[in-house]
Amino acid sequence: MAQRIVRVTCPDRPGLVGTITTAFADRGMNILQLDQFTDADALPQTGAPVHGTSGGSFFFRAVVDSPADRTPDDDAADAEFHRLRERLTNSVDDSIVEVQPYPSKLRVVVLASKTDHCVVEMIRRAQTDQLSGEVVKVVANHDVHGPLCDFYGIEHVVVPNADLTKEEHEAAVLEAIGTDVDVVVLARYMRILSDDFLQKAPCPIINIHHSFLPSFIGANPYQRAHDRGVKMIGATAHYVTADLDEGPIIEQDVVRVDHRHTKDELVKSGADVERNVLYRAVKAHCEGRIFLDGDRTVVFG
Amino acid sequence: MAQRIVRVTCPDRPGLVGTITTAFADRGMNILQLDQFTDADALPQTGAPVHGTSGGSFFFRAVVDSPADRTPDDDAADAEFHRLRERLTNSVDDSIVEVQPYPSKLRVVVLASKTDHCVVEMIRRAQTDQLSGEVVKVVANHDVHGPLCDFYGIEHVVVPNADLTKEEHEAAVLEAIGTDVDVVVLARYMRILSDDFLQKAPCPIINIHHSFLPSFIGANPYQRAHDRGVKMIGATAHYVTADLDEGPIIEQDVVRVDHRHTKDELVKSGADVERNVLYRAVKAHCEGRIFLDGDRTVVFG
Amino acid sequence: MAQRIVRVTCPDRPGLVGTITTAFADRGMNILQLDQFTDADALPQTGAPVHGTSGGSFFFRAVVDSPADRTPDDDAADAEFHRLRERLTNSVDDSIVEVQPYPSKLRVVVLASKTDHCVVEMIRRAQTDQLSGEVVKVVANHDVHGPLCDFYGIEHVVVPNADLTKEEHEAAVLEAIGTDVDVVVLARYMRILSDDFLQKAPCPIINIHHSFLPSFIGANPYQRAHDRGVKMIGATAHYVTADLDEGPIIEQDVVRVDHRHTKDELVKSGADVERNVLYRAVKAHCEGRIFLDGDRTVVFG
Amino acid sequence: MAQRIVRVTCPDRPGLVGTITTAFADRGMNILQLDQFTDADALPQTGAPVHGTSGGSFFFRAVVDSPADRTPDDDAADAEFHRLRERLTNSVDDSIVEVQPYPSKLRVVVLASKTDHCVVEMIRRAQTDQLSGEVVKVVANHDVHGPLCDFYGIEHVVVPNADLTKEEHEAAVLEAIGTDVDVVVLARYMRILSDDFLQKAPCPIINIHHSFLPSFIGANPYQRAHDRGVKMIGATAHYVTADLDEGPIIEQDVVRVDHRHTKDELVKSGADVERNVLYRAVKAHCEGRIFLDGDRTVVFG
Repeated sequence: MAQRIVRVTCPDRPGLVGTITTAFADRGMNILQLDQFTDADALPQTGAPVHGTSGGSFFFRAVVDSPADRTPDDDAADAEFHRLRERLTNSVDDSIVEVQPYPSKLRVVVLASKTDHCVVEMIRRAQTDQLSGEVVKVVANHDVHGPLCDFYGIEHVVVPNADLTKEEHEAAVLEAIGTDVDVVVLARYMRILSDDFLQKAPCPIINIHHSFLPSFIGANPYQRAHDRGVKMIGATAHYVTADLDEGPIIEQDVVRVDHRHTKDELVKSGADVERNVLYRAVKAHCEGRIFLDGDRTVVFG
Repeated sequence: MAQRIVRVTCPDRPGLVGTITTAFADRGMNILQLDQFTDADALPQTGAPVHGTSGGSFFFRAVVDSPADRTPDDDAADAEFHRLRERLTNSVDDSIVEVQPYPSKLRVVVLASKTDHCVVEMIRRAQTDQLSGEVVKVVANHDVHGPLCDFYGIEHVVVPNADLTKEEHEAAVLEAIGTDVDVVVLARYMRILSDDFLQKAPCPIINIHHSFLPSFIGANPYQRAHDRGVKMIGATAHYVTADLDEGPIIEQDVVRVDHRHTKDELVKSGADVERNVLYRAVKAHCEGRIFLDGDRTVVFG
Repeated sequence: MAQRIVRVTCPDRPGLVGTITTAFADRGMNILQLDQFTDADALPQTGAPVHGTSGGSFFFRAVVDSPADRTPDDDAADAEFHRLRERLTNSVDDSIVEVQPYPSKLRVVVLASKTDHCVVEMIRRAQTDQLSGEVVKVVANHDVHGPLCDFYGIEHVVVPNADLTKEEHEAAVLEAIGTDVDVVVLARYMRILSDDFLQKAPCPIINIHHSFLPSFIGANPYQRAHDRGVKMIGATAHYVTADLDEGPIIEQDVVRVDHRHTKDELVKSGADVERNVLYRAVKAHCEGRIFLDGDRTVVFG
Repeated sequence: MAQRIVRVTCPDRPGLVGTITTAFADRGMNILQLDQFTDADALPQTGAPVHGTSGGSFFFRAVVDSPADRTPDDDAADAEFHRLRERLTNSVDDSIVEVQPYPSKLRVVVLASKTDHCVVEMIRRAQTDQLSGEVVKVVANHDVHGPLCDFYGIEHVVVPNADLTKEEHEAAVLEAIGTDVDVVVLARYMRILSDDFLQKAPCPIINIHHSFLPSFIGANPYQRAHDRGVKMIGATAHYVTADLDEGPIIEQDVVRVDHRHTKDELVKSGADVERNVLYRAVKAHCEGRIFLDGDRTVVFG
């Protein structure tokens, strides 16, 4: 039985869910999961919404199966969902319609520096079928993750930054990432990516920042958290944009600390939050649960 | 603009969401929120599901508005939603369709003994528009909540149990509750209700049990939690059924404790969890978010 | 049996705990609780610590009882603890020694604007013996808390700010607070206090800020949290200093939110965190658990 | 500079902390951390406590350094702490005094069946210096952890249970564990250990149970949690005793679940809680933070 995730984004108007789900029903497709959200904050603020064109933003995600007896092979199912996508795109104005297989298996490339706790997390979650994605490659500045990658049978590329300009290094990293990739994960990657890199990147990039943003934007967040005497530290996973640490937030979490924690102990406690937050963000991305809504995200649970 | 919560429960089959939401669209109704769940565990376990009759359980909740220009008054909207309800009931076999106003304002009667933290929670949440319900009456075994009820302008009935048989007392309590009520809340009410009472009760009853069920079923849970040396204590809100502490669980939460907590301190820490869990359960009930699924509940977030 | 909280702060050096606890033992006093912390981060950073004078900061708190048979009355116990305090002050160089009754019952004055959830929290916690303090007075800018204060039998003073300069208003507020007070609590008090006010204040002041500091310092934190799309909102209780929102942090907590929360819903969710965080901070202060350590706090659990 | 953890347990009486810490001070030892707890619940319940012999239980843990200039080598420090231990044992009646190096490095043997998430957690935490212990060996029923152990350079012994009686298998497991071990960790080890095994075991044994005890004692807790419709699932780390799942609880935690979780998803969500709870329990044990207090534990934070 072939199942798919179907995502629709468009301006809000009455009847959208009916239009979309009837398109499913007409093909005998059954809805297994459905999430829908209308961002009321995006509605025109003055006067009543004009009937029929609310102007808000509409986000829709469903997991759908096509009938087993009509899709004996994946090609038939592909064709079926291709026609569904066309019909939806035509019948819903200004819509973006996306279809991906369910369960998901996105291709993930991990960018790393020396620290390995987030790298291990990505690999372990993928190996135990919890990521809805597969780590196809680890690209690192330093030659420290080789044995780990070998153990788990994952391709490993080292792109040292010594003797290279930033431009040259970024070009080499892009080359190493390649194009057969759905999402790049910065697993405590310590170099800032240029606008040029971001424009050339073949897919979205998710970063884990080691603070509860917007607290402690920039460098050395744990030292600054310690100096400030905060009682909780956190981590933030976000899409990478040209504005450093300002990209749309996907997921955050915190852990309680107290006066006994030295800065080094904050770093160790923080590592657990970082890897958990990054895992949940990448998993949500792989499962098609995240929609961009301006500078914010809609993340279906 | 008249808005309603529409709830549909039925056996699962393909096309349900399309059927329901098209019925909305045909009336120009817009979907503001939509939650849907199919209990796959209820599917037949042997062989593939028969096409068209999956046999599982389907739960649907939507918040819908009818167009403002067509419903200048509540009566017109009532009629519109009445017709919607009829159409859905007819077009979906074996379905239960329920319609209630949105935002909700259910009528809540609180049953109390001496303890008042849950009583105060219910009243305060209602007064600050956070309960989606209104506390219309407090019925108590003991004459201790009078001043509080007077302060908040809430009717207060004392039904002492001295000199009454259990039957007589329950009859008096039922009389005090009356029939103009949507949900009864046991706010740390310390008497066990008989099957007879439950059958005569005019509406569902929600209880807060002061343990993390199924741990410490029955009496003195905090003492037993202390003796057992648990590191967390909790509370459980559930619908009341004839089986003591066995009704469908609505909500649970815990709080961390340690060796320094005496039994009395467990009671105080527990009181905070109790009132929060009870509040969230009653609010979810008032907002039509809870469905019974056998001995379990589906609670839409 | 007379019990006391004994607090000692001084530069760290070997033997401090022995010196202090032997002073207890010599008087037949028994230690019921003991917390001790040395701030290693305050140690000299260059070279090894000089033997015998580590230079770090030492914080000590104990709950002690004096023998029941030797203290039939409070006066005798007072005298006993007075002598203990003198001995400790003399035998520990550069020390600050503080003694307060246990269980604590500090005198709390609440400063309020219109919002009442933190005011109610303070009063209810005090009335149910959970604050280790007593709310002796509510001083407010607006005449809205009268009925509540009357109901709980608490003195209530209104100091409107209309027709008054900031100086005049602050003078009137200080007058209303009086001097028979141990701690002032800003329960969502919306006016910024001048340096002059802080210098004249008769006791420490605790504020609740409605964000997870240092995120969203200043005005409208919930709006800004919404615009930024954070996935958790929080609250921070801190001592008030001349630097707005920069005083030593006492306690923080967060609550999970998502894309469905409007700004108004963030405000409601935030209110629960605010009152809980403020309650825990004031309770810790009343119980003598908080020590200032530069710009940070040591809070014993 | 040689540092040690010093633990003292004895019946409570006045002056204990003074006696102990003076013994430190007399040797120029400085206290870096100190935790102390008296179990008031263990006090005689009838009549006032007899002066000088309260009868309660007293638990004390300190991290102490001996002066660097007097302990140029470990042997000297060992001798110093040996004399301290003798003095304390002699001067405190009925006391148990234990001394272990600080930072701790206990020798941990892991017992495993097929599941590996807890095995990996133990190894990774140890390798990154977060366990205060070292995993010296993995003993397993099934030959599945070999590559992992080889990768991390850890000795690995397989003791299959086919063709062996329970007695024979347990004897082989005991043989494999050996005697050079401080704590045995059951990392989701699925066989019940006999009383005979427990009596012969060379050290304490910590188990992770996959439910929030005392809920769902025994087999298949996730299935039963699913059937019961609980809204949180948990895990419990405890010392193993002859009473199955009844040993003293060390640590517990929970994770929120809802109606969408199938039994298999509960298992996956639960795995994260299990490994975290087990990690915290073993770390606390290695650091000498746990004391047995009858059927309960005192765990210093």
